Amino acid sequence: MLLLRNIKRFSTHKMVKYLKQQEAIDIDVALFNEYKFSVDQLMELAGLSCATAIAKSYPLKDFNEKSVLVCCGPGNNGGDGFVCARHLKLFGYNAVLYYPKRVDKPLYNNLLHQCQSMDIPLLEKVPSSEQINCYGLLVDALFGFSFKPPVRVEFRPIIEIMMQSDVPVASIDIPSGWDVEKGEPDEGGIKPDLLISLTAPKMCAEKFEGRYHYLGGRFVPSKLARKYDLCLPEYPDTDCCVLLND
Amino acid sequence: MLLLRNIKRFSTHKMVKYLKQQEAIDIDVALFNEYKFSVDQLMELAGLSCATAIAKSYPLKDFNEKSVLVCCGPGNNGGDGFVCARHLKLFGYNAVLYYPKRVDKPLYNNLLHQCQSMDIPLLEKVPSSEQINCYGLLVDALFGFSFKPPVRVEFRPIIEIMMQSDVPVASIDIPSGWDVEKGEPDEGGIKPDLLISLTAPKMCAEKFEGRYHYLGGRFVPSKLARKYDLCLPEYPDTDCCVLLND
Repeated sequence: MLLLRNIKRFSTHKMVKYLKQQEAIDIDVALFNEYKFSVDQLMELAGLSCATAIAKSYPLKDFNEKSVLVCCGPGNNGGDGFVCARHLKLFGYNAVLYYPKRVDKPLYNNLLHQCQSMDIPLLEKVPSSEQINCYGLLVDALFGFSFKPPVRVEFRPIIEIMMQSDVPVASIDIPSGWDVEKGEPDEGGIKPDLLISLTAPKMCAEKFEGRYHYLGGRFVPSKLARKYDLCLPEYPDTDCCVLLND
Repeated sequence: MLLLRNIKRFSTHKMVKYLKQQEAIDIDVALFNEYKFSVDQLMELAGLSCATAIAKSYPLKDFNEKSVLVCCGPGNNGGDGFVCARHLKLFGYNAVLYYPKRVDKPLYNNLLHQCQSMDIPLLEKVPSSEQINCYGLLVDALFGFSFKPPVRVEFRPIIEIMMQSDVPVASIDIPSGWDVEKGEPDEGGIKPDLLISLTAPKMCAEKFEGRYHYLGGRFVPSKLARKYDLCLPEYPDTDCCVLLND
């Protein structure tokens, strides 16, 4: 059984391609420019797949009224976080937002408004290490595949809190603070229990040691997947996410 | 068993509210103006739920290489159709589009472009009654909840073909040509085998006699549902559609 598990893990690693940062950026640009998707469309599908992966891994019945804290950064990763929070709320979870650096753009203002008008509260300041332990799960939607170190000062407290807390962390696309290719920084970083790679995993995901590694964002045209030799796994049935390290 | 089934049907009918046309319009307006959703966001979720309901009811393995013809109208119902076709393609179905009246707006141009760049062919003219029998399923995405009779001349041939064919028809939100409140026209209309109501069923759905009546569009804020007393059924787990006449 252990052997089989290892073989399966190995075969997954051989099969799925782990992208360099520039490849991830190029694929993203192609989806918008060449395939003419809108950010709203892909963010909706990406965020839905994040909420679905979370609901599959952390069943609602285990939460005992505890909330999920979704920490959103200032870019598209944060946008995925807002969408994820909204779908978690629709799935019955108590979602709470933390959004340390607001971006005054219609897309983000609307995503935040949607959440707030669905009674998802927004924390005014970073929770203390005592407060953080009241949550059942922390969702890390701070930085995505375009991140370059170092972490800016306004995000350091929440990353520290996520690093120190025993509450499991679910990272969207990239564990925030990790180098997109090299992985966890030498001085230590977030150790997510769940990672959901979007579109295709980035190189740092090979260093992920948590329990659940999902792939989400089931929207990649097969022509684009072939061009970048992505070797994406098959999604089961109509599922919007697939467990890679099953 | 039969008794239980009837009770369940009855209780579903008692429970879920069937909307008047104006209520459907008002709820749609509220989603965009009050809750600040974008058309792209909700259309993506609606179309995904249509593709999912179709895949659950007509498994891919039964198609034997037959294609699904998705017939798209000039409004948002047609937009849902494009999104549905794209997700069906991602699920492994051979989708084909028929789009008799093109609308030159960025939203529709992009939706069509996404499909075409994913190798979904577009029929140039209405299929003959022989050609239509080569399809495994016809998706009716011509008119939605804002439809007022009569059917315009350019859509009559495809509606006639769908009425006469033995290939099952899956209608998105409203069986096209039906009065949104009164149902099938006196002179006869499409008799869909599947109907997927979006957001909430409209009054005409009470007259639906096909096999599968789904609800999709899992995005309605609970505050809005309460305001309109929608009494929506619970969606199972993370599913994006729910069978109403189970």
